[in-house]
Amino acid sequence: MDKLSVIKIGGALIEDKEALTVFLSDVAVHQGLKIIVHGGGKKATQWASKMNLPVKMHQGRRITDEDTLSLITAVYGGLVNKSITASLQALGVNSIGISGADGNAIQASKRPIEPIDFGFVGDVTQVNPLFFDQLLQLNQLPVCCAITHDGKGQLLNTNADTIAAEIAKAMSNKYDVRLYYCFELNGVLEDINQPESIIETITTDSYKQLLSDGVIADGMLPKLHNAFDALENGVTEIGIGSTKMIQKDCKYTSIRK
Amino acid sequence: MDKLSVIKIGGALIEDKEALTVFLSDVAVHQGLKIIVHGGGKKATQWASKMNLPVKMHQGRRITDEDTLSLITAVYGGLVNKSITASLQALGVNSIGISGADGNAIQASKRPIEPIDFGFVGDVTQVNPLFFDQLLQLNQLPVCCAITHDGKGQLLNTNADTIAAEIAKAMSNKYDVRLYYCFELNGVLEDINQPESIIETITTDSYKQLLSDGVIADGMLPKLHNAFDALENGVTEIGIGSTKMIQKDCKYTSIRK
Repeated sequence: MDKLSVIKIGGALIEDKEALTVFLSDVAVHQGLKIIVHGGGKKATQWASKMNLPVKMHQGRRITDEDTLSLITAVYGGLVNKSITASLQALGVNSIGISGADGNAIQASKRPIEPIDFGFVGDVTQVNPLFFDQLLQLNQLPVCCAITHDGKGQLLNTNADTIAAEIAKAMSNKYDVRLYYCFELNGVLEDINQPESIIETITTDSYKQLLSDGVIADGMLPKLHNAFDALENGVTEIGIGSTKMIQKDCKYTSIRK
Repeated sequence: MDKLSVIKIGGALIEDKEALTVFLSDVAVHQGLKIIVHGGGKKATQWASKMNLPVKMHQGRRITDEDTLSLITAVYGGLVNKSITASLQALGVNSIGISGADGNAIQASKRPIEPIDFGFVGDVTQVNPLFFDQLLQLNQLPVCCAITHDGKGQLLNTNADTIAAEIAKAMSNKYDVRLYYCFELNGVLEDINQPESIIETITTDSYKQLLSDGVIADGMLPKLHNAFDALENGVTEIGIGSTKMIQKDCKYTSIRK
């Protein structure tokens, strides 16, 4: 099976043009086929502020009304996505930026309005692995933003970690898939105050132990939930750590069976 | 030769969700292969106003500073582009939204700063017909926004009429290409105050006559310049008229040899 890396990048990296360029240079020399998934992070919040658009949150999660969806579609699907593809082209990597609507790549259903109405937020129902594969066969590196559609013309804001996991799962029928969650920490930490206290390996069994011991920070739980969902559904390894992780020249948290 | 229609849509249509849906339904049943090219028009101006971003113009043309480029990339490449692809998917038309950076589709060079510095505005240097053809062969309808790149990581704001003409020219080696400029009038008019005074055919010879007679409104000249450039470079016919033109159930201006 050919190797495929699904690489998710987060907010802080996208803000920092220099760090993003270094990261994309690492991606350019990373062996094997690749797919990048990104959100937009703080940029959307900055623009909301510029446009006097109130940011509505519920338990740390953004509520996406119509204006916010327009903003997110613009910032994630346009500003951030096209900046990444233009930078990759400059590095000699042929890439194509997409949302879930393009090529019908990712369908989602609008989240039920009970108990909390999150607005235009979608939960992934279907990934189109054939389309991603067609792009890969054309030597294109797909760069996918965190926007999906419902197949009826409605765009939906969707969690980028989940999108990355769903793409990784869908592609694992054909490829040996590794999923990388690049973020601002060096991995899953034993002690959130000790940046080097990286838990280097988590298996299904050790995860249960870590959970019952209360070692894992609450903020990590959704990411780990996505990671184990991917692991149970055909993905070979999930890496959680800094952007240097894809070059394997640093420690990171490896989740595997 | 297979038939290919390159269809450019303008500002007013993009503002009007209902009219856009009708137009895209017409596109869906239009015979043959298709490529859509769009700008963003008033939406970018509205957002600039919301963000207190001054709109700088020189002789009716927008000056694109860095903030304006970000805005245009967001609005054209994200908001408008993804709305169109999601709407087409809902109509059962598999489509993919791109900028000139995606798939290295369209390269441009930044316009010289003399005599007027228009900022991040690009003049097309190269269209990648192979990439457009690869998408068409995958039964994808490419939807291209009016953003190009310089191959060195810089995105550039580029005239949508010109992009449409350049794509049409580049594809005419392989396809029998028709280029449609859909806009708010019914065609090139003999009398700008008479919406039905459509000049139904313009040839290279009659164009010279119309110019020397001073019949053509100044605002039409750049569009006609692009149209005749396309005609001289392999495009079979250029239509200028309303969005109904692509269904051929109305009069329009046909430019041909």
